[in-house]
Amino acid sequence: MDVAQCERDMDIAQVLHMNVGDGDYSYSNNSLLQRKVISMTKPIIDDALTNLYSALNFPKTLIMADLGCSSGPNTLLVASELVKSVYKIRQKFGNDESPEIQIYLNDLPQNDFNAIFLSVSKFRKNLTNQMVSNNSSSPCYISGVPGSFYTRLFLRKSLHFVYSSYSLMWLSQVPEMIDINKGNIYMSTTSPPSVIKAYCEQFQKDFSTFLKFRAEEMVSEGRMVLTILGRQSDDPCSKECCYIWDLLASSLKDMVAEGLIEEEKLDSFNIPQYTPSPKEVRNEVEKEGSFMIDRLEVSEVNCDASTGNNLNLSEEEDVQGYNMGKCMRAVAEPLVLSHFGESTIDEVFKRYAENIKSSMSREKTKHINVTVSVIRKG
Amino acid sequence: MDVAQCERDMDIAQVLHMNVGDGDYSYSNNSLLQRKVISMTKPIIDDALTNLYSALNFPKTLIMADLGCSSGPNTLLVASELVKSVYKIRQKFGNDESPEIQIYLNDLPQNDFNAIFLSVSKFRKNLTNQMVSNNSSSPCYISGVPGSFYTRLFLRKSLHFVYSSYSLMWLSQVPEMIDINKGNIYMSTTSPPSVIKAYCEQFQKDFSTFLKFRAEEMVSEGRMVLTILGRQSDDPCSKECCYIWDLLASSLKDMVAEGLIEEEKLDSFNIPQYTPSPKEVRNEVEKEGSFMIDRLEVSEVNCDASTGNNLNLSEEEDVQGYNMGKCMRAVAEPLVLSHFGESTIDEVFKRYAENIKSSMSREKTKHINVTVSVIRKG
Repeated sequence: MDVAQCERDMDIAQVLHMNVGDGDYSYSNNSLLQRKVISMTKPIIDDALTNLYSALNFPKTLIMADLGCSSGPNTLLVASELVKSVYKIRQKFGNDESPEIQIYLNDLPQNDFNAIFLSVSKFRKNLTNQMVSNNSSSPCYISGVPGSFYTRLFLRKSLHFVYSSYSLMWLSQVPEMIDINKGNIYMSTTSPPSVIKAYCEQFQKDFSTFLKFRAEEMVSEGRMVLTILGRQSDDPCSKECCYIWDLLASSLKDMVAEGLIEEEKLDSFNIPQYTPSPKEVRNEVEKEGSFMIDRLEVSEVNCDASTGNNLNLSEEEDVQGYNMGKCMRAVAEPLVLSHFGESTIDEVFKRYAENIKSSMSREKTKHINVTVSVIRKG
Repeated sequence: MDVAQCERDMDIAQVLHMNVGDGDYSYSNNSLLQRKVISMTKPIIDDALTNLYSALNFPKTLIMADLGCSSGPNTLLVASELVKSVYKIRQKFGNDESPEIQIYLNDLPQNDFNAIFLSVSKFRKNLTNQMVSNNSSSPCYISGVPGSFYTRLFLRKSLHFVYSSYSLMWLSQVPEMIDINKGNIYMSTTSPPSVIKAYCEQFQKDFSTFLKFRAEEMVSEGRMVLTILGRQSDDPCSKECCYIWDLLASSLKDMVAEGLIEEEKLDSFNIPQYTPSPKEVRNEVEKEGSFMIDRLEVSEVNCDASTGNNLNLSEEEDVQGYNMGKCMRAVAEPLVLSHFGESTIDEVFKRYAENIKSSMSREKTKHINVTVSVIRKG
């Protein structure tokens, strides 16, 4: 791949990555989904922070980073959970002195940091109110760090705790492919083996780069808790992760058949995402070598949980299908837009939403999360 | 003053502070003015960094902050000068190991951090190009910190070097006044003594708060270089600092006389700024006690330097008056707008610009800078 192509792909990946958190219906800032994920990973975070806190012998400062923080109602919710968790751990250990906490919020430079910064003062007030009984909440300093987490972002040996949720499945670029991924836009059962290999290798390269840079930035005994959209199966073309993209591919193929999109355009379009299995995550952590795995867990989030609005079955399915369609549009629109152009965008997502709705009426849809908690070796 | 009033004033001060750097013609991001200030303070910065570097015994990391960084073409220029200065110091000491540099860019939450972050990658490329001959430029990490510098912003003992330019003359709020500052909007020879006292005390309180919080955040031997719009005279009502606001007061008074603005509105309008003398700066630093003064200097910047466009005298005066009018509009507009409302704003600044132009044709206009370089005591 030439440099210009590589830069174009990086741009696409950056736009995508940013927009993942842009709005309430995207992966990482879908309020309900993210709240579920935070609530599910909370025990793992608490556990990691408790062990970190005692391993560092009750430190006076704690420096944490949320990588791929996005911008929306959940960005500071994570920060708030981290501070509250430290507060409870201190109480548990009977430690009177509250450590000062620095939280770095990282995302790509295109992320809306202004919106986050405008809500910091409200976040501080809420935190103080919630912990006022003790009157000794930790001072918390918030800072924004623009840049890709596949590069160095922080000073050497400066971080105690790193958190990342629903971000690491985004690759740094579309994998370089020697064969055309004919009729597909992601890994699929009909993809050439070389395409599957390219996707796997891009994930391995990116995740290992991520681990290497974080290892440089973290103190010995530092902890990371990473939640990645993943899969249970060892098969990277497993339906659990690829089906949602097959539905988009199907909409695009229909439009090619109707002459609305050029075939060459579809042939050159691929999604820069990889949803790893727990085994692949373990392999990369062990291969890179700087971190020890403390916990590795798989969890499921149902995408078709009841809306709680007392609707009948058919109405529920409609609403759930509509929501999932909106979510996937927020995730995929920047990619589709930059590749296929403005003129086709509404038609693509109209068809995609219909495909999603009809698929959800036939079977349950769920997200698989792979969560890994690791310790920086001494 | 009740809490609500205090909060309103804080809001005004915040809006003002932000807009000071909003656009090319404001104080702290007027390209030409700021470049002059950077170039004038550069020897003081170099000197402070050289002494810091050897006092810390060639540190592996250097953590710096630019307080009141604003958002514009000069924001990253300051960061770039800091990194280049460290590079030259290393060469001077023959030190092969390049320290990693963290630069925190601070301003109020309303500042446009998104714009800064989007130019970080270009800034890094330029830096690398400028220092490529040696191939050992310091890695530089940029981070945005939203908040008032009259509060704590950073972890305890975490900063090595603090820089601030054209920001500390902005008070945290309009001073509380027991008398009405009749016919004035700032300190003036016709202001009641209680108004002058209120302004002086607000500056003392704010600057001392600033020093106290920075003292908590800085390491022993850490250095600060602060450039403040100030005055040479001991008289706070000296023409050198008050005349520019007298010209705005005069425009507003004319509009009161013509019934375009209510008199009560003018009576309750005051500018939250204080331009200190070097003596006042020295007094506050010594009174607060955490820092030792290394250098304290006064410099002048002419506001009516030639435009360099080969204009005749009258044309030059026109252009300079126009530029100064634009500069002062950028500085004062948010304040005037929030107090007097949308309907009068254009008329106010039309008259103000005319006053400035006619004044500049009569006498030279200049900015007085007070620059202080201080060392955190051990």
